[in-house]
Amino acid sequence: MLPPAHLLVVAVGAALLLAFRPPLPALAARPIVAAAGGKPAPTEAAATARWLAAQNTWGVLSTISSDLSGAPFGNVVSYSDGVPGESHGIPYFYLTTLDPTARDALEDERTSFTLSEFPLGTCGKIDPENPTCAKLTLTGKLKLIDPQSSEADLAKEALFTKHPEMEGWPKNHHFQIFKLEIKNIFLIDWFGGPKPISPTEYLEYEKNRALLKSS
Amino acid sequence: MLPPAHLLVVAVGAALLLAFRPPLPALAARPIVAAAGGKPAPTEAAATARWLAAQNTWGVLSTISSDLSGAPFGNVVSYSDGVPGESHGIPYFYLTTLDPTARDALEDERTSFTLSEFPLGTCGKIDPENPTCAKLTLTGKLKLIDPQSSEADLAKEALFTKHPEMEGWPKNHHFQIFKLEIKNIFLIDWFGGPKPISPTEYLEYEKNRALLKSS
Repeated sequence: MLPPAHLLVVAVGAALLLAFRPPLPALAARPIVAAAGGKPAPTEAAATARWLAAQNTWGVLSTISSDLSGAPFGNVVSYSDGVPGESHGIPYFYLTTLDPTARDALEDERTSFTLSEFPLGTCGKIDPENPTCAKLTLTGKLKLIDPQSSEADLAKEALFTKHPEMEGWPKNHHFQIFKLEIKNIFLIDWFGGPKPISPTEYLEYEKNRALLKSS
Repeated sequence: MLPPAHLLVVAVGAALLLAFRPPLPALAARPIVAAAGGKPAPTEAAATARWLAAQNTWGVLSTISSDLSGAPFGNVVSYSDGVPGESHGIPYFYLTTLDPTARDALEDERTSFTLSEFPLGTCGKIDPENPTCAKLTLTGKLKLIDPQSSEADLAKEALFTKHPEMEGWPKNHHFQIFKLEIKNIFLIDWFGGPKPISPTEYLEYEKNRALLKSS
């Protein structure tokens, strides 16, 4: 699954990491050239965030718990931000109020959704907490989608393509489609702290890339 | 990594799942016999929770964000609940206040820590959100450990054994050891909703197992 060129990038990255600890500022700013189709270079923050959202199939959705007096509550959920090859960056979920996460969101929309590069297998031997093993937290509002809308049709296609068994889940569990309306983006993909990415930069990444290509 | 007997259990579970959808109550209550050393049977809730905590090396730690006006904030972190083969169920973390999670916890201790069975590879083709692919959320208080205490020594050994590169992380980042003081346990490992497990049942699982063996 991992092209040899990408393995080389990981190996070189790991060697640099061991050789220059603690990292020098000059090193922290130096981009790694990504293998074609693989993980984007650390200089490409919006691309990396969109890559993480497109490649993963599950993450942790955190809500303000109504059962636990307002404590944060993280839950493992599946999601999709589009059919393969046509991701749009917005995570859609298929949730039931039999589960606390959907109940919490209907009372308090504030939610964060967290993804790691680690389960994709591209971090190699780098620790999951190492800043070069990318992590993304999208924070915003978890919104229920009108089941009669065209957005619901697109979301269902996105979800059921990546998660085929969802379509057969029990009807009497009343699964509903939710989406995260993104307000804040926290991305770590290199040394030097989180990368500043606005929701617009993140969501319009594909459009901007197309404009760059055609200019 | 996965013994053939365990693969068989997963395959039989998947076949039953496809054949009996939506699940019949009688099926939901039927235990699957686990392969020796593998995932415990769904009837063994405390054992399953402890197995998830012992097998994983990373999860998502969710705090009440001070940067984001009290929104929940999930972050990818590494952890250890003991050296391999001697897990105790309490997750220890190695965090820096350069990162928002540690800063949040020092202002508001309420935290949840979420683990999935999916990255272990034992869910097979079952979807990450399917209730038979186990998920664990430990909710409680994230506590800073006195670096001079014997607990800190044990925690360091537990962390550095599972995450060798941690020991070489930059000293000027001032990493500190935290632990989750567990108040509530949410485990899904089968149909029928979360399993009731008390923190005592979870933490004393090994002791109780030893008592059962010797009786």
